[in-house]
Amino acid sequence: MAWQVSVRGRTITSSAIREILKVTERPDVISFAGGLPAPQTFPLDRIRDACTDVLARAGTRALQYAPTEGLAPLREWIAERHSAPGCAIDPEQVLITTGSQQALDLIGKVLVEAGSVVLVETPTYLGALQALSLSLPRFVSVPCDDDGPLPEGLLAARAHDARFLYLIPNFQNPTGRYIPEARRVAILQAAAEADLTLVEDDPYSALAYDGSSAATFLSLGGDRVIRLGSFSKLLAPGLRIGYCIAPVDIRRRLVLAKQAADLHTPSFTQAVAFEVVKDGFLDRHVPTIRSLYAAQCAAMLAALERHFPPGAVWNRPRGGMFVWVTLPPSIDGAVLLERAIEEKVAFVPGAPFYAEQPQANTMRLSFVTVPPPLIDEGIARLGRLIRGMMD
Amino acid sequence: MAWQVSVRGRTITSSAIREILKVTERPDVISFAGGLPAPQTFPLDRIRDACTDVLARAGTRALQYAPTEGLAPLREWIAERHSAPGCAIDPEQVLITTGSQQALDLIGKVLVEAGSVVLVETPTYLGALQALSLSLPRFVSVPCDDDGPLPEGLLAARAHDARFLYLIPNFQNPTGRYIPEARRVAILQAAAEADLTLVEDDPYSALAYDGSSAATFLSLGGDRVIRLGSFSKLLAPGLRIGYCIAPVDIRRRLVLAKQAADLHTPSFTQAVAFEVVKDGFLDRHVPTIRSLYAAQCAAMLAALERHFPPGAVWNRPRGGMFVWVTLPPSIDGAVLLERAIEEKVAFVPGAPFYAEQPQANTMRLSFVTVPPPLIDEGIARLGRLIRGMMD
Repeated sequence: MAWQVSVRGRTITSSAIREILKVTERPDVISFAGGLPAPQTFPLDRIRDACTDVLARAGTRALQYAPTEGLAPLREWIAERHSAPGCAIDPEQVLITTGSQQALDLIGKVLVEAGSVVLVETPTYLGALQALSLSLPRFVSVPCDDDGPLPEGLLAARAHDARFLYLIPNFQNPTGRYIPEARRVAILQAAAEADLTLVEDDPYSALAYDGSSAATFLSLGGDRVIRLGSFSKLLAPGLRIGYCIAPVDIRRRLVLAKQAADLHTPSFTQAVAFEVVKDGFLDRHVPTIRSLYAAQCAAMLAALERHFPPGAVWNRPRGGMFVWVTLPPSIDGAVLLERAIEEKVAFVPGAPFYAEQPQANTMRLSFVTVPPPLIDEGIARLGRLIRGMMD
Repeated sequence: MAWQVSVRGRTITSSAIREILKVTERPDVISFAGGLPAPQTFPLDRIRDACTDVLARAGTRALQYAPTEGLAPLREWIAERHSAPGCAIDPEQVLITTGSQQALDLIGKVLVEAGSVVLVETPTYLGALQALSLSLPRFVSVPCDDDGPLPEGLLAARAHDARFLYLIPNFQNPTGRYIPEARRVAILQAAAEADLTLVEDDPYSALAYDGSSAATFLSLGGDRVIRLGSFSKLLAPGLRIGYCIAPVDIRRRLVLAKQAADLHTPSFTQAVAFEVVKDGFLDRHVPTIRSLYAAQCAAMLAALERHFPPGAVWNRPRGGMFVWVTLPPSIDGAVLLERAIEEKVAFVPGAPFYAEQPQANTMRLSFVTVPPPLIDEGIARLGRLIRGMMD
């Protein structure tokens, strides 16, 4: 049969995470692998009431074809949330997407040429590498420290003629890393010098455990920045409501790319999401997610202190869903995972998060879906395995 | 500012239809332009009950991240609906997409190389041209008559090394054309000789006014065919639930492309759609849509007889949503539209539906959202304008 697969069709590979998730869905496995939010935080009653209200009040509209750019009141709400003194966001800059993942696909189509350079953090979000890889770019990893990308690492961008720097400023996936405001300013200065643009992917900012929020790259960098956001970690990922905020001319092209991709994100889920959030619900709801995650993060940090051997180091996240562990140099995360699955514990090895030169002795641990006693038990099992491999 | 737009980002243009729709949304315009289903057919109560049931019974699952391929019971339901004697469809061949529009984007990514040939009907669905254009193919139009593509027109496919033939077999958008079963067999024979594969896009088959259904290309052609389907014209487009059925190896690659594109179609709308259809609801509901559309189609055909001048010809659709009119050669559909909008009537000119050499004296008329008295009034206005242009 004459099906001919394209270069892109042959290039694309499955996300290592999603393959691992399939293995670890068994209920007897303690899984630190998922990037899934804790389901007990989903506001079921509120979403049910919103469905009923939307269908009663504007049902045929919410079920009809709709404009590609997204529901106007939802875009206005997003624009208002992101406007700051000196940085007014127009709803015409906002595009609703099917999860923020889709924004990455659209950005690839509109901005990336086959073979052109895209700068990423070291390490970076695997799903972004996967989405952008369909545009066949060359990824270049920017050197990073615990505060994020090093500004001097961006000065090479001009030589590379890079299309943009992709970064996750708050509680990064996979490292949990947070870029302090002074570093943000320095990165933007270096970007201006290199005439480099930025894609700021920020699904986790509202999950700062102390409720603080740093200035966004968008508010500091204006037209130099496309910002991605999502309701997946604040309401529920199964609604698949994300968005991007871009300079008007780029946003116009992103709208056209989205029109070709799926006409529009479901009008019904957009209307439901707006109905849920419009009266300030998130301001009451999100603090309950924060305190749950803060407690489980503390439980995991305590378990790591208790059970992991000297030579393993990890960060202490100030928000979000992930802890990043660097193991003793002799321990390969992928080998550890094979043994861990036999002991009914799972996590994601760090290597797939590197666009270049993977560091194999790393792992990503998610603490949000496992209750504290099982966090301790799971980390204890991992600690024993690591000690065994060191002997 | 250094935003660099890719070749694809510069290539993509807006759908002429969606631009026209913006102009014609005013309530005083009689619009035959839309491809929107009639909103009074949306089963609002049934969808509201389904939302409530899904959230009560499996709410957290329906709101969590989910497998890229789609909800298993929905895929099983689709596989069963498409299985015929000698053609058993496995749920592993089914991928749920965000409307069938998304399947076209994914097929482009997986099968189309920049510069490779894609065969299309003359004319063809504008949204397909738009979706596939992001993969930068070369479109070649296959000669067609009133029964669809001419089989001898496919024999050139081998010389072109075409990636596939894209066609809409039932009540085609834009022409309302129906490919009889004998022609389907002849097309598949020619395709086998040319070692050509087919993409069968079939959103309208259930809208045959007499309730009949012809053998699908999928059932006749097996592994040579990818079939696209949708709930948009049977339930409600705002749910954005479509699907494709493909050979297992191609489907595996389409799943990976979808994972990169948006992780998955909203789990909530998938669960709601399955809840609505699982007990045979469509068998009771779809006949009500058919009789509404059949009556409005008859009203439009009668109005055309009454008001359009000699020299204009049109088809008599057996189903679906569209009538295709070929005007006297001197009348340009785009010029007619400008004057029609002044008279508060709208339609879609035919030229944008041609991948090559547009035939300007054509128009697409949709009759499904306009009540019969207004159909007569709108067609009368158009008839007067055409006669005026002929003088």
